[in-house]
Amino acid sequence: MRVAELSRTTGVSVPTIKYYLREGLLPAGELTSPNQASYDERHVRRLRLVRALLEVGRLPLATIREVLRDLDDQADWDMHHRLGRTLYPLAGVREDAPSAELAAAMTDVDALLARWGWQVDPESPGRRRLAEVMLTFRELGVGYLMTEIDRYARAAEMIAESDLRGIATKPSPDDVVTGAVIGTIVGDALQAALRRLAHEHTSVHLFKRS
Amino acid sequence: MRVAELSRTTGVSVPTIKYYLREGLLPAGELTSPNQASYDERHVRRLRLVRALLEVGRLPLATIREVLRDLDDQADWDMHHRLGRTLYPLAGVREDAPSAELAAAMTDVDALLARWGWQVDPESPGRRRLAEVMLTFRELGVGYLMTEIDRYARAAEMIAESDLRGIATKPSPDDVVTGAVIGTIVGDALQAALRRLAHEHTSVHLFKRS
Repeated sequence: MRVAELSRTTGVSVPTIKYYLREGLLPAGELTSPNQASYDERHVRRLRLVRALLEVGRLPLATIREVLRDLDDQADWDMHHRLGRTLYPLAGVREDAPSAELAAAMTDVDALLARWGWQVDPESPGRRRLAEVMLTFRELGVGYLMTEIDRYARAAEMIAESDLRGIATKPSPDDVVTGAVIGTIVGDALQAALRRLAHEHTSVHLFKRS
Repeated sequence: MRVAELSRTTGVSVPTIKYYLREGLLPAGELTSPNQASYDERHVRRLRLVRALLEVGRLPLATIREVLRDLDDQADWDMHHRLGRTLYPLAGVREDAPSAELAAAMTDVDALLARWGWQVDPESPGRRRLAEVMLTFRELGVGYLMTEIDRYARAAEMIAESDLRGIATKPSPDDVVTGAVIGTIVGDALQAALRRLAHEHTSVHLFKRS
């Protein structure tokens, strides 16, 4: 397809597509004449991935370029490591040395992960995020909100299995990664909306006087 | 207790406490002499609630004043309606008329709520939030991420039951509301962190080549 059709298919404007081509975010099309190139389904998928990382993941262009280069270099990596490489930068976790309090909370997180039998890389940003939340609850005087943490972990397992079942049906690695990026970021909003609706429904039984 | 002890107990500075008193966010203490007042546990709880609404919920002071006035006026309301009155403004949902597309998605949400048997007020901001997420998935070409919505709803029920069990143990209405505010907002970060860790654990089995 020509660039105009690529634009129609993806909803990305022609000037933006040309900008992505110059910036190396999109591989060049196949030249069909000195100033005309042809694009295919791989370009459609890559454009959707760039849009997801940019608009949904809000990653800076330099990071996106790096993530995409890694994805292409690692075509023979397994999907587990490719997902990790793409999703870790989305966490936006600080990389400075943790305070003594945070380090202690991260040790608590490791104990929880061991109890649940979860295999998580020591470098995973999720460990630090969970530790930060646990500290915040303690500082706000609502540490008791962690008493149900084992049930929350079981619910998270159910959700994660559904998430991965959904994206694993996609045939192309770019589609899997795109689904994982959007599913991770917009998925937070989905889960938050469902949780609020479920709160209201549960509260009817627990707190409402007829 | 005197204002200095109230400050030590809650971690809120004396000038800030005096500001909240002037602004009507905190009820006056009992005068023990012409320029000395005495505060009690109700002041401690109310200060924690103000801090939660301000720092965690990021509500503007005017909204907090309104929420607190309602809470006090509605001392004889049941907890279900008091929680709704406090938590609805936290959703930050736009109140303009929905587009035709969004209105259609909200009808889809109502059908889902009926299927799950969830009792949710027609005014609940969660309905619009869920509809907005469903539209976003469709626009990004990943509508297939909604195929597991029934399982997500079951997981949300599990989480909501744990959330409410946690806060229902608190004796004072102010404590219940404080726990609900913090648990709703910081709870999003908790659930997101757990979901990412569970993704990684699940991906090991599904995608990792040994």
